Amino acid sequence: MAATTSSYSITMRLHTAPDHAVVGRVATTISQAGGVVTAIDVAESSHERLVVDVTCSAIDAGHAEQVRAAVEEVDGVEVHKVSDRTFLLHLGGKIEVGSKVPLRNRDDLSMAYTPGVGRVSMAIHDNPDDVRRLTIKGNSVAVVTDGSAVLGLGNIGPGAALPVMEGKAALFKRFADIDAWPICLDTQDTDEIVRAVQLIAPGFGGINLEDIAAPRCFEIEARLRETLDIPVFHDDQHGTAIVVTAALTNALRVVRKEVTDVRVVVAGAGAAGSAIVTLLLAAGVPDVVVWDREGCLSADDETLPPAKAELAARTNPRRVRGDLRTGLAGADVFIGVSGPGVLQAEWIREMAADPVVFALANPDPEIDPALAGQFAAVVASGRSDYPNQINNVLAFPGVFRGLLDARAHEITEEMLLRAARAIALVVTDDELNPSFIIPSVFHPDVPKAVAAAISGRPPRD
Amino acid sequence: MAATTSSYSITMRLHTAPDHAVVGRVATTISQAGGVVTAIDVAESSHERLVVDVTCSAIDAGHAEQVRAAVEEVDGVEVHKVSDRTFLLHLGGKIEVGSKVPLRNRDDLSMAYTPGVGRVSMAIHDNPDDVRRLTIKGNSVAVVTDGSAVLGLGNIGPGAALPVMEGKAALFKRFADIDAWPICLDTQDTDEIVRAVQLIAPGFGGINLEDIAAPRCFEIEARLRETLDIPVFHDDQHGTAIVVTAALTNALRVVRKEVTDVRVVVAGAGAAGSAIVTLLLAAGVPDVVVWDREGCLSADDETLPPAKAELAARTNPRRVRGDLRTGLAGADVFIGVSGPGVLQAEWIREMAADPVVFALANPDPEIDPALAGQFAAVVASGRSDYPNQINNVLAFPGVFRGLLDARAHEITEEMLLRAARAIALVVTDDELNPSFIIPSVFHPDVPKAVAAAISGRPPRD
Repeated sequence: MAATTSSYSITMRLHTAPDHAVVGRVATTISQAGGVVTAIDVAESSHERLVVDVTCSAIDAGHAEQVRAAVEEVDGVEVHKVSDRTFLLHLGGKIEVGSKVPLRNRDDLSMAYTPGVGRVSMAIHDNPDDVRRLTIKGNSVAVVTDGSAVLGLGNIGPGAALPVMEGKAALFKRFADIDAWPICLDTQDTDEIVRAVQLIAPGFGGINLEDIAAPRCFEIEARLRETLDIPVFHDDQHGTAIVVTAALTNALRVVRKEVTDVRVVVAGAGAAGSAIVTLLLAAGVPDVVVWDREGCLSADDETLPPAKAELAARTNPRRVRGDLRTGLAGADVFIGVSGPGVLQAEWIREMAADPVVFALANPDPEIDPALAGQFAAVVASGRSDYPNQINNVLAFPGVFRGLLDARAHEITEEMLLRAARAIALVVTDDELNPSFIIPSVFHPDVPKAVAAAISGRPPRD
Repeated sequence: MAATTSSYSITMRLHTAPDHAVVGRVATTISQAGGVVTAIDVAESSHERLVVDVTCSAIDAGHAEQVRAAVEEVDGVEVHKVSDRTFLLHLGGKIEVGSKVPLRNRDDLSMAYTPGVGRVSMAIHDNPDDVRRLTIKGNSVAVVTDGSAVLGLGNIGPGAALPVMEGKAALFKRFADIDAWPICLDTQDTDEIVRAVQLIAPGFGGINLEDIAAPRCFEIEARLRETLDIPVFHDDQHGTAIVVTAALTNALRVVRKEVTDVRVVVAGAGAAGSAIVTLLLAAGVPDVVVWDREGCLSADDETLPPAKAELAARTNPRRVRGDLRTGLAGADVFIGVSGPGVLQAEWIREMAADPVVFALANPDPEIDPALAGQFAAVVASGRSDYPNQINNVLAFPGVFRGLLDARAHEITEEMLLRAARAIALVVTDDELNPSFIIPSVFHPDVPKAVAAAISGRPPRD
């Protein structure tokens, strides 16, 4: 049975007969229906009735409805209202703007706004570099999307993407004290996206591109990097690449192989896959084979579309052709950023000794991590309900913290590699084991270590 | 002598001989040099020395330097460091982004971000109107500028405009609990500005255009209003028009004239002037004459540029031609939104009985308000150091609060008029007098009254 999740958590307000035993019956009923009770709160107790708020998690919407129906059947219980905790959390948005300056009286106004602000503006006019010192630009990041490739949901558009971008902004604040603001663009045209970001750039210290579909995202990023004087980072590409490289570094520590000795197969030539390939090559992996729907990408295949031909030209030195199984034979590492179920367990047996399997497709991985664990020495996935979760939250907050601290104008491949090494090194030799190759996103050292690796400065306190 | 201002306030750190009498000598010296001491703090006291922080306000940078030099001359005093309080206040920017949701553990993450956020995104995808309910769009405003007409500073560009836009965002929060974010555009091309705002619109519940030069601002606003489904408000135009109309309403209460009976001369046909004219006409003023560098604008003058010809066509029923003095003869009201010194005191004598003079040019008004007060029944200006300050802070926070509360798709002229009336009515009959025609920006009823007038709903608490 699938696991319940707090992302599907409901609170039911129950009106019951004035008998406290009913609470126990409700809890039992929920458990029998497969729900997990996380809180029970008797909100009101009188001679006539009890009012009880019961919170429980379920597997999905259908299951939540089954749980509700089961509770409704309990004798003496009326389900008065069902609230979906996730929706309650998102009501009104998840971020807010605060003023860092007091605005209590005319004196405050005259310093923060007119006429005092005029002198600050003129100082920036006279010395444009001061904008990073005297404004929010020194600490702000635009989280930019066109809504074309949102999570695993696909092309849902800019409005529907907004809750995700807000969440990202909240994470920027939580993990790196960065002021990020979502910019959801009402276009999916490459030229328009590029121009819009160029036009809004003066107010931001960095651009985090998010959930923009491949191959459009490659051109957008390249053109923005060429024209803007602030760093541009496509998290789906480079954030993923950093964390995968960090995890691979530690997986190889576990199986005692050298990164310069291994053969890696990457399934999926999209945004994430192509960035992972680039960073693995930069890290010194000598043999990377990329597999996608065309089979193993090889430079001698002239039928490949441009982005894949470009990837093929940089990889696959042995010019392997054929299906994923063929590509995997004898490989040390499988990294999946493709789709559910593309990897079969028996193929793992045909890999080299102590194979490493990263099945990162979301929400459904390339192979069930538990099954893969029966054959592979180290397994990682994108899921929080298995060990070794590959989560971009490990990278992007610290990356931008470091970029902003350094007032960087660009981000380099060398920075990405340093960030990956920094994340890997947070896991000590004592901690390292097949089920612990990557630190928790809540490990307080991670953002600081990444920021220091990016900026080349000692961590801020 | 010009007044000192806290927008030009410095803090000097002094090292002095260990003699507390020196503090008195410093204070006296600052006063003699024309500075105003606002705080003295002995930070350290030992047998060797005192460390004293002295804060005082000055007229301008040159005066602050004179004050510093005078203190340096005091026997036994060494000026160790001089800090400009306004610059200190702006360091690092004046606004920040906060998370409204807890992000303490994996459960929190799974509700605020993946996978939980996916359900919220799909709910919006299925029902696009929900974006105002489930995201920040319901409470957010973009403060958009191209930096072409910033305060009285002119065309200083988007980076130098950022401190002003941040200040505006801070005011939105302070006065109406609105989450506003500055968008400083790296273009001054009308088409590009329009397109950029259209592209970023999905994430915002309203657009506040700010400090965009005329006549470009008229076309930008018109095209955005036509194409966007959220309200677009150019504060330099409509915010000013609302507050001027409110102030005029109360000035006429003071002099016991009816708005439908008066003749008004507006000096300055820019963004503010043209919006003021539109709102005064809507309020029922029968005779408005606009004066600008071409003289009094009249429909029979075929040499006028397009924007001014359009204004002339709607005004000046008597087809007055000539200079400002000619236009003013017999008028009841002068409203200046032009430049310093264009109005001479003796011309006020040639106006109708009980003339009303609003000299709003910033920072230097059309006539010194004190001088105007010798001839006019009621005087208002944009300055905080005279009575009756016309300040847009009275309007824009409540305007957007009302628009967001009503989930409005547009803003109408009728709303602007209602907002003006609401501001005027905050001043009770008992309070009303020639030196008090407009409430303080800190009057807590103002934003609520304006919001209720805009939305047609009772005020929020």
